[in-house]
Amino acid sequence: MVSWRDRRFLDLVGVERPIVQAPMAGAGGVELCVAVMQGGALGSLPCGMLSPEQVRDQVRQVREQVSGPLNLNFFCHRMPADTDDSAWRALLQRYYDEFGVTRGNGGALRLPFDEAICAVVEELRPEVVSFHFGLPSDELLDRVKRTGAVVIGNATTIEEAIWLERRGADAIIAQGFEAGGHTGVFLGSDPAEALGLFALLPQVADAVSVPIVAAGGIADARGIAAAFTLGASAVQLGTAYLHTPEARISDVHRGRLNEGRTLFTNLMTGGLARGLQGRLIDDLGAVRSEAPAYPLASAALAPIRSAAEAKGEYGFGPMWAGQAAPLGAAAPAAELTRRLATDALAILKR
Amino acid sequence: MVSWRDRRFLDLVGVERPIVQAPMAGAGGVELCVAVMQGGALGSLPCGMLSPEQVRDQVRQVREQVSGPLNLNFFCHRMPADTDDSAWRALLQRYYDEFGVTRGNGGALRLPFDEAICAVVEELRPEVVSFHFGLPSDELLDRVKRTGAVVIGNATTIEEAIWLERRGADAIIAQGFEAGGHTGVFLGSDPAEALGLFALLPQVADAVSVPIVAAGGIADARGIAAAFTLGASAVQLGTAYLHTPEARISDVHRGRLNEGRTLFTNLMTGGLARGLQGRLIDDLGAVRSEAPAYPLASAALAPIRSAAEAKGEYGFGPMWAGQAAPLGAAAPAAELTRRLATDALAILKR
Repeated sequence: MVSWRDRRFLDLVGVERPIVQAPMAGAGGVELCVAVMQGGALGSLPCGMLSPEQVRDQVRQVREQVSGPLNLNFFCHRMPADTDDSAWRALLQRYYDEFGVTRGNGGALRLPFDEAICAVVEELRPEVVSFHFGLPSDELLDRVKRTGAVVIGNATTIEEAIWLERRGADAIIAQGFEAGGHTGVFLGSDPAEALGLFALLPQVADAVSVPIVAAGGIADARGIAAAFTLGASAVQLGTAYLHTPEARISDVHRGRLNEGRTLFTNLMTGGLARGLQGRLIDDLGAVRSEAPAYPLASAALAPIRSAAEAKGEYGFGPMWAGQAAPLGAAAPAAELTRRLATDALAILKR
Repeated sequence: MVSWRDRRFLDLVGVERPIVQAPMAGAGGVELCVAVMQGGALGSLPCGMLSPEQVRDQVRQVREQVSGPLNLNFFCHRMPADTDDSAWRALLQRYYDEFGVTRGNGGALRLPFDEAICAVVEELRPEVVSFHFGLPSDELLDRVKRTGAVVIGNATTIEEAIWLERRGADAIIAQGFEAGGHTGVFLGSDPAEALGLFALLPQVADAVSVPIVAAGGIADARGIAAAFTLGASAVQLGTAYLHTPEARISDVHRGRLNEGRTLFTNLMTGGLARGLQGRLIDDLGAVRSEAPAYPLASAALAPIRSAAEAKGEYGFGPMWAGQAAPLGAAAPAAELTRRLATDALAILKR
């Protein structure tokens, strides 16, 4: 019976396999979370777009189906003061016209962790709480920590990792620029200086003493083993799980994962996030200054996206994917979780 | 006595340690090459800026000091048809004025592998010839291969790796976007889609059957071990050797390697290359459309660079560095080579 030499994350969180399912707001949910937990890894619920009632309901559904540690994930961005998105709406006018929709006020916005949602965490007592885009205020963070939850922060630079450890994070995700979805950058580093996981991970491992969770560019057992070699105590997998039937993404999105061409765009939310290209990016370019700050860009886009997707056109909504997407394989998430861990251990013990 | 499980590159090239010294035109040279060969790895001479006479002279110097396989590195770009750099010279006018220099016709240009230099390869018969920016014409490549040289190509995408294998490369460098210096991209992929080594390396390993040399983001033993875990049979180290006394770089450049902030710029040559920031980038931004195509931008810049460096200002010339620069350590190159290989083996055997 082989086992993980580095057990720091396993012991901290109390899971059998050192894999964290990336929350993936929009693509993750109860079904994926449950399957990953059944596979012996850390399941996550993306709560950044949910109301307190929805969080309660989803946690209840998870608890009814599976036992074990559960991670609730929240965003810690500041809502932008300037909410003028007139330039953005003007840029999108051609699509309002084309799809015959009005500008309306869009769907659910990504909202930062606040007082109300903190009270829900105190009530539900998840074993793990992870934050993207920094951490909440000291006061709210203290309240979360007093519930006994393990707190995980997300770093894209060495400076962010040090900042997170000093503020009290119990584990730190080292998010390489290869990762699909939003970069969690929060200390204002230049996107042109974004670090690949190969360079980021060992530098973070040298800079902090808490366990590190490697993210970005990992979608198979080799990647997990290599991440451990570079200093990780666990990995966070997102795109790998997009191939599973439990991921809530369109067939178009799933079918294109193997293309292997992704880039950062700010068109979907206003924040930089890595994904596949589609019509909006083809038409406008991947990054536009007219897009309002995160997360406001999604509101004006929402009615266009809905109308387009009703016609089978998915290029107006996010199709997040990381650079290792073609390394993934379609399998049920619980089975995939077990197989990835077993195969990675075999590589490490070879 | 531990040894490398994957001996494909070692056996192909006939070296003891699976490390290739990155050629590094401008920073590499006879001294570094000899030291790396003394360390049991593959030393490289950057020949892309040398005349046939200079190549002959440097190879003679190396052969006099050390035995073992030697790699000569050449460029395979096409010289641009449009040599109008008036917009670029206009942009630089303020610096001509500031440093009191005239526009002159600059220093040595980076030149592509041609008939004349091929004849030198046939004469000198290096054990290994590596090419950046693709491969030479079939005819020239055949002549190189008939000398018995092992031919190594450089890939930044899976498509480039497949192209190189089909054209006859005996080994392929998988160059992650973390690498310092010029990206070797040659099939026109979008720089916004550049792949990190973590995602690139296993995908290249799956796509081709020749041995793979991992490059970019590797500067310590952990990185070497992780690269082998992801499918590499060797690594190419550039920035790691910039810390050594044998590297011919300024004290300013060497002293700033640990800053850890690098980005791609086209200001130095017209081609995208990763390096530290300096005054030119601070003033103009890292990427300018006025810069003529590779390699022409360096000519107009050369007199400014010379005058600036005479005053101790190094921000007008390349200060290439990869993202793992802070992981490097100052040590003589032969000793560093031996230590990195020994430590990587220890990690792999743990």
